[in-house]
Amino acid sequence: MSTIQDVARHARVSVSTVSNVLNGRADRMGRETLARVEAAIALLGFRPNRAARQLKTGQAGMLGLLVPSIANPMYGAVAREIESVAQERHGLRVVLGNTYRDPDKEAGFFQDLLEHGVRGVVVISSLQDERHLERAVDRGLVVVSVDRRASPGSDSRVDHVSVDNAEAARLATECLIGHGHQRLAFVTAAGQTMSRSEKIRGFRAACAAAGLEADAMVVDGHTRSEYGDAEMAELGRAEALRLAALRQRPTGVIAVNDMLAYGLMAGLRDAGLAVPRDVSVIGIDGLFLSALVTPALTTVQLPLPAMAVTIVERLVGRLADAGVPTGEFLFQPTLIERESVAAPRRVGAARARA
Amino acid sequence: MSTIQDVARHARVSVSTVSNVLNGRADRMGRETLARVEAAIALLGFRPNRAARQLKTGQAGMLGLLVPSIANPMYGAVAREIESVAQERHGLRVVLGNTYRDPDKEAGFFQDLLEHGVRGVVVISSLQDERHLERAVDRGLVVVSVDRRASPGSDSRVDHVSVDNAEAARLATECLIGHGHQRLAFVTAAGQTMSRSEKIRGFRAACAAAGLEADAMVVDGHTRSEYGDAEMAELGRAEALRLAALRQRPTGVIAVNDMLAYGLMAGLRDAGLAVPRDVSVIGIDGLFLSALVTPALTTVQLPLPAMAVTIVERLVGRLADAGVPTGEFLFQPTLIERESVAAPRRVGAARARA
Repeated sequence: MSTIQDVARHARVSVSTVSNVLNGRADRMGRETLARVEAAIALLGFRPNRAARQLKTGQAGMLGLLVPSIANPMYGAVAREIESVAQERHGLRVVLGNTYRDPDKEAGFFQDLLEHGVRGVVVISSLQDERHLERAVDRGLVVVSVDRRASPGSDSRVDHVSVDNAEAARLATECLIGHGHQRLAFVTAAGQTMSRSEKIRGFRAACAAAGLEADAMVVDGHTRSEYGDAEMAELGRAEALRLAALRQRPTGVIAVNDMLAYGLMAGLRDAGLAVPRDVSVIGIDGLFLSALVTPALTTVQLPLPAMAVTIVERLVGRLADAGVPTGEFLFQPTLIERESVAAPRRVGAARARA
Repeated sequence: MSTIQDVARHARVSVSTVSNVLNGRADRMGRETLARVEAAIALLGFRPNRAARQLKTGQAGMLGLLVPSIANPMYGAVAREIESVAQERHGLRVVLGNTYRDPDKEAGFFQDLLEHGVRGVVVISSLQDERHLERAVDRGLVVVSVDRRASPGSDSRVDHVSVDNAEAARLATECLIGHGHQRLAFVTAAGQTMSRSEKIRGFRAACAAAGLEADAMVVDGHTRSEYGDAEMAELGRAEALRLAALRQRPTGVIAVNDMLAYGLMAGLRDAGLAVPRDVSVIGIDGLFLSALVTPALTTVQLPLPAMAVTIVERLVGRLADAGVPTGEFLFQPTLIERESVAAPRRVGAARARA
């Protein structure tokens, strides 16, 4: 590989003259000199080293992306959209980190980004407490937090991009109520991320609006401490067995996300129950896999491509101008009806069996 | 953030003295000077900038990872393992790129890695032709190619880490034959990656060994040009409809990977056929999702954690010592029996219907 020194030698100019050409400061340079430098750059196939340029500009041409686990298809789908927008619109590369929802891993990632000269980071589905994100801002990072809303009343220095999670759960719950279900359960993992809290709020609101709050239950189960990918589905599978054993079994179940819904459907099958004949199941996320499972999963879909554009543009915009105020960007989900929701079996028949 | 200049000013030494301390060249330095510099570093919370160190060492503390699409759960699972090994064993961060099997995107990624000072790259499931990887080596990259074997007879300057794909397909085919299937199909996408060719070879060998080659068919379908994630499942769904319409329908189907198997099962369901009652389906990959689908998918599992260790250690080893010869590392898969394979319906009955 040729160096800036090679170019300078070949063009018979100083290294700082080559540097001026590379950095667009050639306006006071003789035309013949400029042509000689450009010819040397082309002839030697010289590529300016970004690490060197970064020392001057403080920009790394990269952004960081933190997810709980990239093996979870939801985060894989989000990462694909963000990488695509970052690369195609801005030529930015993505440094990926898995955090397994571990605060130490999140902090270690921020530290490494700073040391690598990367100043923008997207944090997906972070912990309930956002103080560590504010500390990252103190240290010079520009942060976009995805999948959670700003804390009410706080004056956050972090952008928040999320779907309206309360609305997503409300849509799912109303879908079941619309099919005639009256005994409903919302199943989630026990760790309280803000998106989970919002979904529970939407579920309760929809139940209350239909006068069904007395029979509405929230089921939260503990996963193994390492948050990942299979864990959420395994949790759904375990909770399905508990639900199946209840005397007053819910007829309609909302899963906090599609992965948990897959586990619920597998667990109900293990318990000898059929979906949707015995229990209707609805998810939230809209993974492409949900069209493939048996029965195809009715779910609430998030507008990932539009969200990815906002995420990247906010990051790039605030990297370019630190004066841009932070904001909260809330996207609306849509219901996708498939085959996992049907009318409950006749109430009389169900009561007689119970 | 404090700079090296701040440290030098505070310790009343030159910048190059601070640099010597940071780079372990303090042996000829007065003890009192060294103590003053170390105290200033601690007091100011100074972190040496990796971009600056990288200019000296040519090491970026990062490695590149190219996948066809991170939204495909198989590549998400591999990326999780690789990131985990790279981070925990070597403190390396991962720069992620999606290529959609586009040679221009692969080349653009290599270019960006070089410009960022990243010298090691893992390429998963690359194109059949590996000349672009050799060109990347010419330009200074250390490359590990995953999911394909070295071209026979070539003296590659790239490491190859893969599962024994012929053996994987052989295990899957023998599983169906062991259950009594005699009319078999292998379903794949049309693009000839080396891993697909190897699997077809293993399928044909197992059929021939059982005297079933006359009734063995390879079905390859075209996907949309953009390779991604849902495409493979959609292809399986479309091919299932074609298979279902055949007069001499295969009773046992091997899918080139689990994603395609999910699509096959959905398509067979669309056609009114039951798995495994009417058609047995077996996958290759061993995604965790395969335990959740209905029926749970019998599949051939790849040893991803062990493969990830080899991938990262080869990369790190050859980055440290360019003299280490390249190699081919072949891992053995294992059969995981679940519920999607059963004995075919009685041959007499099937013939009577045909």
